[in-house]
Amino acid sequence: MTLPIESVPNGTVTSAKGFSAGAVFAGIKTPGLDKRDIGLLYSERPCAVAGTFSQNSILSPTVTLSRSRVGVEKQVHAIVVNSGCANTAVGEHGILDAQEMTEIAATHLGVTAEQTLVCSTGVIGVEIPMALMREFIPQIEATEDGGEEFARAILTTDKRTKEIAVSFDVDGVTHTVGGVSKGSGMIHPNMATMLAFTTTDANVDPEFLQATLSAAVKLSFNQIDVDGDQSTNDTVTLMANGAAGGSKISGGDAASEAFAEAVLKVCQHLAIEIARDGEGATKLIEVTVDGAHSNDDALLASRECAASLLVKTAVYGRDPNWGRIFMAVGKAQIPLDESKIDCYVNDIQIVAEGKAISYNVQSVVSALGGDEVRLRVALNVGDGYGRAWGCDLTEEYVVFNSAYTT
Amino acid sequence: MTLPIESVPNGTVTSAKGFSAGAVFAGIKTPGLDKRDIGLLYSERPCAVAGTFSQNSILSPTVTLSRSRVGVEKQVHAIVVNSGCANTAVGEHGILDAQEMTEIAATHLGVTAEQTLVCSTGVIGVEIPMALMREFIPQIEATEDGGEEFARAILTTDKRTKEIAVSFDVDGVTHTVGGVSKGSGMIHPNMATMLAFTTTDANVDPEFLQATLSAAVKLSFNQIDVDGDQSTNDTVTLMANGAAGGSKISGGDAASEAFAEAVLKVCQHLAIEIARDGEGATKLIEVTVDGAHSNDDALLASRECAASLLVKTAVYGRDPNWGRIFMAVGKAQIPLDESKIDCYVNDIQIVAEGKAISYNVQSVVSALGGDEVRLRVALNVGDGYGRAWGCDLTEEYVVFNSAYTT
Repeated sequence: MTLPIESVPNGTVTSAKGFSAGAVFAGIKTPGLDKRDIGLLYSERPCAVAGTFSQNSILSPTVTLSRSRVGVEKQVHAIVVNSGCANTAVGEHGILDAQEMTEIAATHLGVTAEQTLVCSTGVIGVEIPMALMREFIPQIEATEDGGEEFARAILTTDKRTKEIAVSFDVDGVTHTVGGVSKGSGMIHPNMATMLAFTTTDANVDPEFLQATLSAAVKLSFNQIDVDGDQSTNDTVTLMANGAAGGSKISGGDAASEAFAEAVLKVCQHLAIEIARDGEGATKLIEVTVDGAHSNDDALLASRECAASLLVKTAVYGRDPNWGRIFMAVGKAQIPLDESKIDCYVNDIQIVAEGKAISYNVQSVVSALGGDEVRLRVALNVGDGYGRAWGCDLTEEYVVFNSAYTT
Repeated sequence: MTLPIESVPNGTVTSAKGFSAGAVFAGIKTPGLDKRDIGLLYSERPCAVAGTFSQNSILSPTVTLSRSRVGVEKQVHAIVVNSGCANTAVGEHGILDAQEMTEIAATHLGVTAEQTLVCSTGVIGVEIPMALMREFIPQIEATEDGGEEFARAILTTDKRTKEIAVSFDVDGVTHTVGGVSKGSGMIHPNMATMLAFTTTDANVDPEFLQATLSAAVKLSFNQIDVDGDQSTNDTVTLMANGAAGGSKISGGDAASEAFAEAVLKVCQHLAIEIARDGEGATKLIEVTVDGAHSNDDALLASRECAASLLVKTAVYGRDPNWGRIFMAVGKAQIPLDESKIDCYVNDIQIVAEGKAISYNVQSVVSALGGDEVRLRVALNVGDGYGRAWGCDLTEEYVVFNSAYTT
């Protein structure tokens, strides 16, 4: 039996029971309309916690510290996040400042620093302005409707907040999974970071929690691309506080399947919104590869395609240039048979059995002109399926990221 | 004893003794001033031959055919190349057309098709216009000073030819290594290809020939990046005809070392010229990583840095944004110690022991404004050394590759 997953209206990171959040503007980011730059996410009940972190060899100390506080034996109550300064490449101060940020937040909330995570995003190579942290973190009031404030506090040059929540019922108990994310914009002199914070009021076994998050991240955040670069600060967390009052979710039943599906829906939404809001982007590109030998092959090939500059620029130019799609899929070096490949733009077929076919050019150009473009590559050699999301590459990306402001 | 390597004035692919070349304009490319679109490279003496080819899962049949004719047991006399049409993704016709191109060239030159290689670059998904091949290949006159004509015949949207030759003496016998290449431009509706053809009049053992070429390609063509995409048609060949009259070169002596160094010099020059002439580029970026645990670590990290869009746009914007350099080096996921990293722009140090230091901003901005920018990352954890070359990313790249011309 599959349990239905429902969308939660105005869903956000505080939609799950027992989570509260708040934010403040401390002046770390350039001041502007309605900006926030420090956020707090809090659960009075202790939470099981799962996390995935940047694989970059150079990590922010905030990542190092938070990673050490996530695991099956750990419990957390809170996350403090600042935008505007990445706390990366600042020497021995970095870890001390990260620790102090969690101490300030923990004292304010009445929990321990070890139960508090920290994330930072912004300029690399600049120390965290700790005086501002000491002054402003204690001013943050975490409330049950503070999710949107928190969503704003983690943004850098994102154009909009990214929020969602979904729910499912198990034996009359409503379980909710919600989250927020921020994406890849740039604040001089630095790349920004991909952050996502998700929460649930389900009562989840810690090992199952991490396995579920890792599986969802593989099919969501790991399948998006804006510019091929990987931040030193990337973090995704999932906190489960059990406030819904349901039975333990630990895999192997319908409730666990619904939970995993809910987490995947939340992660995919938050990931797709990051791709859509990519720096300079005018449209979202969804690439589906099916008929591969394996799902992993299809995931890799779809990601190569979504990440290809030549595909990105072709879509921007409304050019049904399937030769670039072939090149990008082949770059994945997966087994395939060129003579079996079909290609589609939205639902219009443009390649059959590896060769060009005639199609209505104006229809395809029109499809490429929309806000969302779906590319599908059917390899027809197996059952492997994967999707990835990117955005187009425009002059605006170059202008934005080459603007000299030192 | 190290043998000195000398530059050959106006050196090209026919500088080595016994090689001739020629070209013709058949009308495959858009007509223009002085264009050529079919070229022939020929040696009357049979040549040992080495080659490296695209790793893309989707290959042009011209690559498949040529690869089957390269190896330690094989000998070749000629290469026929066309630009303007890639002969890729055209179904079963592709391999037949590639074979016929070698038959036409072989008949014209009085050799066999099996002794003839073929390369194509240009539009994917369009069949080779064989009537033009049948008419124009026999019109090509290969001459000893035809290298520059041949260099023009392989270009697509390159702005200039890429040619070089070097020589060294062994026991009074002058050995020459020369070559030409073409790079990554775009001809609608398709990515172009990286091709390089190198020649030598040295008498080289076939196994040593392939080992030498593979080692040189690793340190040259595999270390350049324009846009992260890999063509279906990439090919590098090295033909050795022994016309210099020297002793056999098979490794382990000063002559072999000089030969390997000469091949490396030729390949690095041709590779760097491709990076410099990248689509829309205004400058060459050379990235050196030293002090890594291994050369492979340094090669990977330098390539990640040269390929990073954020580094490319920062250099374009004359922005000494070392946070992006850190991110890109860390993306290689090599072992390093952040607190030991030093960074330099040209020779000006901007980072010491992983942290920002004060420097003369105007000097660095001025350095970044030159035609060539050298970035150096000293990891200070070992002796590993590697270099890579890229170009800046400009609005012009996006404009060029998104221009809608279907």
